[in-house]
Amino acid sequence: MARQRVRLSVEERRRQLLELGLEVFGRSPYDAVSIDAIAAAAGVSQGLLFHYFAGKRDYYLEVLRFAAEQLLRETTRAREGTLAERLFLGLRAYFRFVEEHAPAYATLLRAGDDAAVAGVLDGTRGRFLETIRSELVKFQPRQRSAAARLRASLRGWIGLVEALSLDWIDHRDLDRDALVELATRAMAGLVPGAAEALSGTPLAPA
Amino acid sequence: MARQRVRLSVEERRRQLLELGLEVFGRSPYDAVSIDAIAAAAGVSQGLLFHYFAGKRDYYLEVLRFAAEQLLRETTRAREGTLAERLFLGLRAYFRFVEEHAPAYATLLRAGDDAAVAGVLDGTRGRFLETIRSELVKFQPRQRSAAARLRASLRGWIGLVEALSLDWIDHRDLDRDALVELATRAMAGLVPGAAEALSGTPLAPA
Repeated sequence: MARQRVRLSVEERRRQLLELGLEVFGRSPYDAVSIDAIAAAAGVSQGLLFHYFAGKRDYYLEVLRFAAEQLLRETTRAREGTLAERLFLGLRAYFRFVEEHAPAYATLLRAGDDAAVAGVLDGTRGRFLETIRSELVKFQPRQRSAAARLRASLRGWIGLVEALSLDWIDHRDLDRDALVELATRAMAGLVPGAAEALSGTPLAPA
Repeated sequence: MARQRVRLSVEERRRQLLELGLEVFGRSPYDAVSIDAIAAAAGVSQGLLFHYFAGKRDYYLEVLRFAAEQLLRETTRAREGTLAERLFLGLRAYFRFVEEHAPAYATLLRAGDDAAVAGVLDGTRGRFLETIRSELVKFQPRQRSAAARLRASLRGWIGLVEALSLDWIDHRDLDRDALVELATRAMAGLVPGAAEALSGTPLAPA
């Protein structure tokens, strides 16, 4: 591959390196990843790679941010259809992403005391929370504490989706649609006002 | 306090030191905890403290194990009553424990890439999972994948309870019974067969 040196614009090159990083960090733990091998696979020199990213750790964090953007985009792609349909497609995309990047996902969720990594994680969770909250806010009852309950419910629910993902990575004995169904049921339980809107989901009832 | 040197049996002394550690690590981050101060508060020499524990980190891990045992005992104390009542009391005890040990709880859940700490965490989650599974197994449908679904549901649900706890530590704008109610609703959603048994909960419906 090292010979196929192709002229790319700065943006294209950066994107190529991030995509490659997502693939490599998604397959191998951080310590096993060699920057030399990444540069070779991209057909660039290590020097050029460090022109784009200050070092291996900086590159890793940029790859995480790139992955988070991709995940957010893929899970919020569905703009039409009912709430149930959009949640279904969003969850499917989420669990597909977990499946495709299982080692990186598991490592990431267990790296909670690295402040920079925790920052990317919490930022991503916050954006998920806002996206879902904007959908569900109309279902919340008119009580003083309703906003706090919805926020807590969604933060809890994101924790559930992450734990379901880690369980799936460990066991792989359920199919993706079963995970989607469990997450949807939990949400219907947490936000009773939305239960009816969520029951139109394309999944068969239990 | 250092003068009140009291003769305790080995077991009593160990327990005293663990209780003190739980209090101190529950209040302050690990790096801020001084072993000198703990020995002084216990009225023992640092040498005696290191007779019981090999070092600060070993002491901390023993305190974590002690805390996990205490949490498991308190949340599973209710042996009588309906499933709904026992879940209610168990969740109340869980969130009370979170409230009493908030800084330690938050630090602990964010220390996921420390293998020894992760071991205590995962062991505790596993024991919660087994306890709850033994209660819920009779509600699972007779399908081939039912056991995997129940395990995944409970692992997801434990993730939800942890995320709810962290959200509560950050915001503290819901009371404990609101958290108990959200966790109960989510479980009823996840395990539809148990929903009726859980609806007898002492909490008012939404």
